[in-house]
Amino acid sequence: MKTAKQLATLAKQAAPTIALATTSEKNDLLKKIAYSLQMNATSILEANEKDIQRAKQNNMNEQLLDRLRLTADRLEQLADSVLQLIHLPDEIGDLSAVIHRPNGLVIEERIVPFGVVGMIYEARPNVTVDACALALKTSNAIVLRGSSSAVESNKALVHTLKKAFEQTTIDPNCINLLENTSKAEATQFIKLKGLIDVLIPRGGAALIQKVVEEATIPVIETGVGNCHIYVAKSADLHLTKSIVLNAKTQRPSVCNACETLVVHEDFAKRHLSSLAEALLKEGVTLLGDSFAQSLHASIGSATDTDWSTEYLDLTLAIRCVSSTIEAISHINTFGTKHSDAIITNDNEEKEVFFTQVDSACVYHNASTRFTDGFEFGFGAEIGISTQKLHARGPMGLKALTTTKYCISGNGQIK
Amino acid sequence: MKTAKQLATLAKQAAPTIALATTSEKNDLLKKIAYSLQMNATSILEANEKDIQRAKQNNMNEQLLDRLRLTADRLEQLADSVLQLIHLPDEIGDLSAVIHRPNGLVIEERIVPFGVVGMIYEARPNVTVDACALALKTSNAIVLRGSSSAVESNKALVHTLKKAFEQTTIDPNCINLLENTSKAEATQFIKLKGLIDVLIPRGGAALIQKVVEEATIPVIETGVGNCHIYVAKSADLHLTKSIVLNAKTQRPSVCNACETLVVHEDFAKRHLSSLAEALLKEGVTLLGDSFAQSLHASIGSATDTDWSTEYLDLTLAIRCVSSTIEAISHINTFGTKHSDAIITNDNEEKEVFFTQVDSACVYHNASTRFTDGFEFGFGAEIGISTQKLHARGPMGLKALTTTKYCISGNGQIK
Repeated sequence: MKTAKQLATLAKQAAPTIALATTSEKNDLLKKIAYSLQMNATSILEANEKDIQRAKQNNMNEQLLDRLRLTADRLEQLADSVLQLIHLPDEIGDLSAVIHRPNGLVIEERIVPFGVVGMIYEARPNVTVDACALALKTSNAIVLRGSSSAVESNKALVHTLKKAFEQTTIDPNCINLLENTSKAEATQFIKLKGLIDVLIPRGGAALIQKVVEEATIPVIETGVGNCHIYVAKSADLHLTKSIVLNAKTQRPSVCNACETLVVHEDFAKRHLSSLAEALLKEGVTLLGDSFAQSLHASIGSATDTDWSTEYLDLTLAIRCVSSTIEAISHINTFGTKHSDAIITNDNEEKEVFFTQVDSACVYHNASTRFTDGFEFGFGAEIGISTQKLHARGPMGLKALTTTKYCISGNGQIK
Repeated sequence: MKTAKQLATLAKQAAPTIALATTSEKNDLLKKIAYSLQMNATSILEANEKDIQRAKQNNMNEQLLDRLRLTADRLEQLADSVLQLIHLPDEIGDLSAVIHRPNGLVIEERIVPFGVVGMIYEARPNVTVDACALALKTSNAIVLRGSSSAVESNKALVHTLKKAFEQTTIDPNCINLLENTSKAEATQFIKLKGLIDVLIPRGGAALIQKVVEEATIPVIETGVGNCHIYVAKSADLHLTKSIVLNAKTQRPSVCNACETLVVHEDFAKRHLSSLAEALLKEGVTLLGDSFAQSLHASIGSATDTDWSTEYLDLTLAIRCVSSTIEAISHINTFGTKHSDAIITNDNEEKEVFFTQVDSACVYHNASTRFTDGFEFGFGAEIGISTQKLHARGPMGLKALTTTKYCISGNGQIK
């Protein structure tokens, strides 16, 4: 098994072959990848079954098992999503700016790939394919470190993807998987500054935390979403019910699901009981502050820990506030700068919320569930950035590019 | 003396007052800062004199002393540069994109400030004023950690700047200086994730290295410049002499000065001796590989360490190569991704160099000394990014902003 450093070195050496590939060469490679996924479905599903069996022996819960599981249908969807990338524009080589200086210098700002992207992620093997395809479309090489629970699936997928390079001029080392999934090797991986240009972690809070603290490669932090919906005084009950139920229950395990409801006391007095009933009916466990608890007998007691928790299940914390400013302060204190919504009919209040809530995505009268590259119309998504550097919110192809200044002169000196 | 955490907490609390300030309120504050610098010149220069005296006792060399020294003229230039910011556009609140989705959602991508910027830097006290002014113009609060050698100057400058806030609605805690310049407190400072949104280090390689390894705040790496000029086979001797002399000798202590000359052997055989004469005449020490040494008796011996060294003085390393590909490989191996130039009359060769040299700024037939926010026409500069995330190359006001998605709906659920 190769070390992280060996794999990254190979990827760095291979990177120029994808950097110099034309749009049609890259699209041809993506097409071959989609076909290869279809043609090798049997061996991929066999490998995945090994992961599933091992996970079951380790008592993995059904929800995580479902994320780990590949099926023929899911493989076809994966291949489809690779094919869809072909139709998205290729901005590599485009000029994002041209500056003509008085001294005659012409400064072109060109859109260029990063070089080598590093990805460290958990469980879901579909990320393996998505990340490779997005990296290749943006002319980057990529080194992947998936979780140990998905290692057989990931090996089979990367092996399948590498086959697609066979009749091309692009080096298959443009995609490399770290098969050694030990923690020690992961630590080596995230310190490969100079070999890997950007590191994207995708996973739970513990993984993100480790990467932020230990990585020397520049990181784009993603994903942890302690998302809030603030129900203001003037909110419409019908609209509120519909949005809150959707944001909490449609898919509770994802980062853009709602975790805490912040409710203005005036609204709470009138409608919290009815809203609570609707949520309880959908199986949601409710934990609230003393004000919330006083309004419905089935609301349990929330602590400060609840305000900070990304439940990722059918639990909802409820905090009552006496003003929009208090709501904003709660969100900025306990949130993760991911996605937060206000429900109100007051446009001035909406604007205060938009301006002062310090999150990647702020919503008015809509579900937080829309924070997603596809829902934003980007056609693809590599993750959702919760940091403010480089990219913020859903990241499409553009987030995998950087720029370079190319300056042409005829002898200019300073 | 307040701790880094206390100062950052105060800055975070103060940040909304500058975030909500209008363009004219911010420009008014900048004007007051310029006046305050002029009115308090005497006490600033007295404080600077204390730093100078201490530095002399510590045997600081003349070049560093010069960087530390403030004069009435330099203070006036500093005030002038603050005034100039008033005339630069204020993009905060502008929309960088508007997306209308088929489901009726309107997604605005707004340009917003980071919140709190952290700056850790060495020696030059003018950075204190520049950084504060740039942060305020972009609606950010800032926490500064300057070097211990400039602490008296920095205290006097920040005290002076804070006076300018007196008759405004903007909280003076939007600019805070860490007066405790111990290394332990610096370590605390660069780990204040959650309080500081972005960290910009400016200084030598050791400082940058420490920040990259230990910071938990997202970092924009700046400044270390091991810059190359590659003299290709077809280069014009006259043009080459002019550019190389400028890039090496005009101001050798800065990051965009040339440190290594890479020369095609064909050019070297014909012209290296003459080029060496011109450099020696300007007092440049030359260190070369054996090929270079064989062409002029005054060229000393260079080792691998020389290829990696940012001399920041009148020393130049010379490496001879037999092809452009070898030159590019040398630059990508030993360079710092800052600024590298090719001198050639061959446009195809220029394009290969532009595409394959992995640096923020690549030049054709011009001096590397132009890598600078003012020379690029940005009107201001907070530093020169040598990383690929967020900003690359000279950073003007734009680099101190981020974006936020503001999504307006009328009940959309997923």
